[in-house]
Amino acid sequence: MEIRERAPKALENIKKFNPLIHNITNYVADNFQANVLLAIGASPVMAHSEEEVEDMVAISDALVLNIGTPTKSIVNSMIIAGKRAKELKKPVILDPVGAGATKFRNNAIEKILSEVKVDIIRGNASEIGTICGIEGNTKGVDSIIKPEEVLKSAIDFSNKTGTVVVISGATDYIVSGEEVIKCYNGVPLLGKITGSGCAVTSIIGAFSAVEENKAFASLFGLGLFGIAGELAFANAKGPGTFYSLLIDSLYNITPDVFMKKLKFDIKRSLS
Amino acid sequence: MEIRERAPKALENIKKFNPLIHNITNYVADNFQANVLLAIGASPVMAHSEEEVEDMVAISDALVLNIGTPTKSIVNSMIIAGKRAKELKKPVILDPVGAGATKFRNNAIEKILSEVKVDIIRGNASEIGTICGIEGNTKGVDSIIKPEEVLKSAIDFSNKTGTVVVISGATDYIVSGEEVIKCYNGVPLLGKITGSGCAVTSIIGAFSAVEENKAFASLFGLGLFGIAGELAFANAKGPGTFYSLLIDSLYNITPDVFMKKLKFDIKRSLS
Amino acid sequence: MEIRERAPKALENIKKFNPLIHNITNYVADNFQANVLLAIGASPVMAHSEEEVEDMVAISDALVLNIGTPTKSIVNSMIIAGKRAKELKKPVILDPVGAGATKFRNNAIEKILSEVKVDIIRGNASEIGTICGIEGNTKGVDSIIKPEEVLKSAIDFSNKTGTVVVISGATDYIVSGEEVIKCYNGVPLLGKITGSGCAVTSIIGAFSAVEENKAFASLFGLGLFGIAGELAFANAKGPGTFYSLLIDSLYNITPDVFMKKLKFDIKRSLS
Repeated sequence: MEIRERAPKALENIKKFNPLIHNITNYVADNFQANVLLAIGASPVMAHSEEEVEDMVAISDALVLNIGTPTKSIVNSMIIAGKRAKELKKPVILDPVGAGATKFRNNAIEKILSEVKVDIIRGNASEIGTICGIEGNTKGVDSIIKPEEVLKSAIDFSNKTGTVVVISGATDYIVSGEEVIKCYNGVPLLGKITGSGCAVTSIIGAFSAVEENKAFASLFGLGLFGIAGELAFANAKGPGTFYSLLIDSLYNITPDVFMKKLKFDIKRSLS
Repeated sequence: MEIRERAPKALENIKKFNPLIHNITNYVADNFQANVLLAIGASPVMAHSEEEVEDMVAISDALVLNIGTPTKSIVNSMIIAGKRAKELKKPVILDPVGAGATKFRNNAIEKILSEVKVDIIRGNASEIGTICGIEGNTKGVDSIIKPEEVLKSAIDFSNKTGTVVVISGATDYIVSGEEVIKCYNGVPLLGKITGSGCAVTSIIGAFSAVEENKAFASLFGLGLFGIAGELAFANAKGPGTFYSLLIDSLYNITPDVFMKKLKFDIKRSLS
Repeated sequence: MEIRERAPKALENIKKFNPLIHNITNYVADNFQANVLLAIGASPVMAHSEEEVEDMVAISDALVLNIGTPTKSIVNSMIIAGKRAKELKKPVILDPVGAGATKFRNNAIEKILSEVKVDIIRGNASEIGTICGIEGNTKGVDSIIKPEEVLKSAIDFSNKTGTVVVISGATDYIVSGEEVIKCYNGVPLLGKITGSGCAVTSIIGAFSAVEENKAFASLFGLGLFGIAGELAFANAKGPGTFYSLLIDSLYNITPDVFMKKLKFDIKRSLS
């Protein structure tokens, strides 16, 4: 089945099965992440205490780990939850917010990746660069390099680990071994609302609960969020009204509209 | 005095006395809870550190405990604050978010209920079912059963403990011993914004600060939030604009409109 | 150069250099703070773990400490980050949310002020009064006294410590030693959305990264936020739509409009 057929089917299945997405995440974007998941038809749950993450992940359909405001205790919970998720064969998605900004974040991400077999990593170019061993620079949680600059390293990383690597930017790159999918949906104003990266990672989590192919799940998440951004942008007067309209659009996009507006191409890698 | 006279009086008193509502709550809904309290005329304060909750509750008019993102330390703070509140004869309202989802949550709720004489518990049917001893099922923080299925157990629980039990759903049930009040206000879209249950619990907290009868306070909170939902829904294009309009409506509903739009009935229980 | 020339220049420089503002803050307002910073052209980062705050502040252009939901561990992180910021000659801004409400908050603030040379403190009259030794009263996080009542104490405090003291209210007062600037921008509805004080403090943080004179930076932050409030108020139907329009306005105000709408006066103090 082709991507353009699978995309609407996946969105339909989110709305039909309401997958429960367990997020261990930061304090800034958690509300936004929960609201986008509800808008598209998924069920969010946020829980980060090490005493309960195993139980919570066991009733969930995917696990999203977001390192935005990390503490030792939360990183520990991520590893516990991640291991349990993989035992239960549930997809695990990692958002390495601010990778490169502090040693603590870098170590936390390294530890998670060494102990948990992550299915998808999504970050901006600085974050992905840091993970793939480029002496990347980051500006807090914002990227100062372009996806193209880390693409080769991301392909190597994906080949070595089997993880799908998503590099967000003006054009998004989804790297699955030698296969590279580009997604063209989105508008720059998405960069002006906090947590838009975190939100799209949660949406990718929802798609990964209903779509076996994790590169496609990533494309669908990026595409749906980008399309919602395009629709919202048409009527927004700034990032405040844009935020409200973005949630509205995520709620209103039908599988059919989704299929028609999804803009991507796919090819074997540069190598 | 009848309910229909007390309802506008209670709203008037919130606007007049601006009761301070101390919330020990989760990271996802805290902003929403604070904003709904401000919108109706109350003053919110969020404080969860065990070093300060006794001081904070002492200057507050009601205490709202919300178990949405629990940790051992926060549960401990809830018990400290709850005990102090009862010493000072202040109302305590519990929102058992996600009861049934993990053993840790169940134990936390059990511990709180065994140590603090809670005035009102508000949850969805799964959560209330769990508390009342039904082998309920829950889907993270969403209910998968209906209020009617747990009503009898809720009546038993209320009779035994003296606590008002509120079961939220398409129709809300307020159980105070043998007395059952049904509230009919609200729209399904409220279920599409995260933390709407948490928000209504905080509003019930505000009403319980100005209305002696805790079943009535619960009805007023549910009714006001539901009416605001109905008014917002009329102009919303999706859950994003709905959220903004909901806050606007909470701010704009006058005591008179509140009285006229409140839809409920009251009767002695099934038994 | 006069204030009216420096104001638009400062806003221009925020948009040009996108200063990175490190916030150690509370769970209620963090999203709002991040969004206002993005809207005006700055870059927000939130990080509170003691393991990483030194690294984070080292790549940042200003540090904002907000005591809204304090714990022992977060207060400790604030002191570590604050000391490092001053070693690196970066501005530190303190928002003493709820000062006076609990002994724990009072002690935390006292400890921060004794260990970190803070450049700017911004609070409401109750909070500033508490810091300046007035047996102020507070209602949770809301003020129950007026800026005028604490002005003299604030002047004394500023003279003694060299810290710029900002008292928010219907009229805002910026106290820098004997110099007092009044800012007249703003609308009462700002008091009806949670975290508006926290948001303006973060904006002051952004201005302090590009404007040497900390009293001017404070005025520019208060003025810009107040002007955005005035513009938003013109089209808002309540605090919900007001919030969205406020963010839009912060994004859309040009340096030129900023200069024209800024309302203030400046004089040597009462003494």
